[in-house]
Amino acid sequence: MKVTVHGRTQHYRTVTFDPARNAVRLIEQRLLPHEFKIIATRDFRETADAITNMIVRGAGAIGATAAFGLLQGAEAFRGKDLKKFSAHMETVYQTLKAARPTAVDPVNAMNRVRAMMRRGVGVEEQKLLAFAEAHEFANEDVHHCEAIGQHGAKLIRNGMRILTHCNAGWLAFVDIGTATAPMYAAQAQGKKFHVFCDETRPRSQGATLTAWELAQQGISHQIIADNAAGHLMQRGEIDLVIVGSDRTLGRTGEVTNKIGTYTKAVLAARHKIPFYVAIPLSTIDWNLKRGFDIPIEERHESEVLGAWGIISNSKLKTQNSKLAQRAYVRVANPTSGARNPGFDVTPPDLITGIITPVGIFKPKQLWANCGKLQG
Amino acid sequence: MKVTVHGRTQHYRTVTFDPARNAVRLIEQRLLPHEFKIIATRDFRETADAITNMIVRGAGAIGATAAFGLLQGAEAFRGKDLKKFSAHMETVYQTLKAARPTAVDPVNAMNRVRAMMRRGVGVEEQKLLAFAEAHEFANEDVHHCEAIGQHGAKLIRNGMRILTHCNAGWLAFVDIGTATAPMYAAQAQGKKFHVFCDETRPRSQGATLTAWELAQQGISHQIIADNAAGHLMQRGEIDLVIVGSDRTLGRTGEVTNKIGTYTKAVLAARHKIPFYVAIPLSTIDWNLKRGFDIPIEERHESEVLGAWGIISNSKLKTQNSKLAQRAYVRVANPTSGARNPGFDVTPPDLITGIITPVGIFKPKQLWANCGKLQG
Repeated sequence: MKVTVHGRTQHYRTVTFDPARNAVRLIEQRLLPHEFKIIATRDFRETADAITNMIVRGAGAIGATAAFGLLQGAEAFRGKDLKKFSAHMETVYQTLKAARPTAVDPVNAMNRVRAMMRRGVGVEEQKLLAFAEAHEFANEDVHHCEAIGQHGAKLIRNGMRILTHCNAGWLAFVDIGTATAPMYAAQAQGKKFHVFCDETRPRSQGATLTAWELAQQGISHQIIADNAAGHLMQRGEIDLVIVGSDRTLGRTGEVTNKIGTYTKAVLAARHKIPFYVAIPLSTIDWNLKRGFDIPIEERHESEVLGAWGIISNSKLKTQNSKLAQRAYVRVANPTSGARNPGFDVTPPDLITGIITPVGIFKPKQLWANCGKLQG
Repeated sequence: MKVTVHGRTQHYRTVTFDPARNAVRLIEQRLLPHEFKIIATRDFRETADAITNMIVRGAGAIGATAAFGLLQGAEAFRGKDLKKFSAHMETVYQTLKAARPTAVDPVNAMNRVRAMMRRGVGVEEQKLLAFAEAHEFANEDVHHCEAIGQHGAKLIRNGMRILTHCNAGWLAFVDIGTATAPMYAAQAQGKKFHVFCDETRPRSQGATLTAWELAQQGISHQIIADNAAGHLMQRGEIDLVIVGSDRTLGRTGEVTNKIGTYTKAVLAARHKIPFYVAIPLSTIDWNLKRGFDIPIEERHESEVLGAWGIISNSKLKTQNSKLAQRAYVRVANPTSGARNPGFDVTPPDLITGIITPVGIFKPKQLWANCGKLQG
């Protein structure tokens, strides 16, 4: 999507490959929304570190980063010895796999590139196939998000006020995003609408990443406290809710997403406001049969007990970069602890529809419509 | 309630009068939860400033502060001339009234003290009556909260997990509080239970004030993000909800309280979890007939866009007091704005009962049970 820095507007993807420098170029997401910077990793180890250190995050984005990291590792190999090349590639694969051990996307992406490489007879041909397949993977991610946008844009009418939660935007994918895709497509169609971004405590991805994205695209929006959506719905100020999902159960239609999503779905149902979930097919879990069995990650309590931001007290402002001005403030009572579940599960009866790249379906009809498309 | 500072435990009220120094003693609430300090105002103008500057906040607490401020003004008068005394008292009254122009409690409290003073024939007798009535007002506030505690404690059983929102604790009153009163009474009865404090963004009064209160009283508790209660209810981890209210409509049973209260009531109803509101009779509005007519204050967007806390980056830590270490960090995207409604309205069908000093009633039965006690 487009980003304007110092008055200059340019199109960026979250992850790209630079063949001239054999580098993976990434938006340094830890600096957002306060600073926009592209970094280039010099080798596959630095690319793995970028995944580990959260320079890049989001399912689609880390999948493509791992695919390009594998390509970067292949390109760096000197010589024609296929056996040595294969041993080298195993090191590259394991290094990138270990970068985010619980994520499934990097492994899926790299397995796809490796399978394609094995069709090549020599080192050079394998490198060429790696190049083609890594780019194909990234482009497909973009096409899936574009398709979500085309289907979802039909739900958006002029003058609508849309609520979204957390960040399922282009920063989490290679481009365009999922929950944001219908908004970007509707904007391209000339529709005017307003977006309320839930702050999304404790990590505030709505206030930081989603708000930044919408501001860059020039979409009218406001941030609200997570407490405010109920009141706005009650007063008739929200017409539509679109969120993303980290894992959707294909057999039951249950949706796992960032903590607080379930609450918004309950409120939307009470107020008869359509509640949609936008997902690529890769996030559908076709195996699990009960949402209650989805393990909910309990994250560190420091996230709830304080907040990260840019210090604005002039006395304390340093002359250094924005990163140096970033600070964690302890908000909560110092002798109190916190519970911090990271995700929640929304049952299908609260979901109006699931927006996928192949159409919009009732959550319980995912299996019938998409089950045959599974991996 | 009790407060432990440097290992020494003592009982405090939020507001007291010190006759030896003719001072109003207040807990400096802006330093909480990071520092506990009692300040003494030297004259009625300083007392008014303390209300304006939020050193003291909360309906009952500012009512008592204004009553004691009026007494302080009376005590400072030198001479026997009743006419001059009355003119002086008018200045005192207007100064304290202007300290928080929209609040009704200081005015009600001072009117009561003034009405009693007028029964006195000379300056000295009026001073004595002011002393008695200001103390009576503060003591009544405490007794009402104690009565709420006695009624509400019956709802708390051993092992219960209770959710509360914002701060309707003893810091908002002279002592004990409203939503917290049943918890303190149940604790005194030897019951064991656990409290989840909603963080209560954007001002985080749950994470700061309520958590501090519960920690001081040794009540088991944890802070949660406002997004987390729905998930905890879904997993069966919350048994009871108790909140306070800023304004309850006596004729309809609608409850105005801190933004996010309505959301918790909707969630509690879905999960069939009892939802109670604890209030003194003084917060009941017997006139308004429609919750929709309650004006909802739209507060400054900076509250949503960032957070106040204590800086914990060692590089930036100063050697000064905790107050100097307090900083506002901008969390949100710098080019985005916010909506910030301060309160919401919960309809009576979502409320299991209203806990008052004279008993627990269904919200629609407030008029029948308490209407005669008004004014």
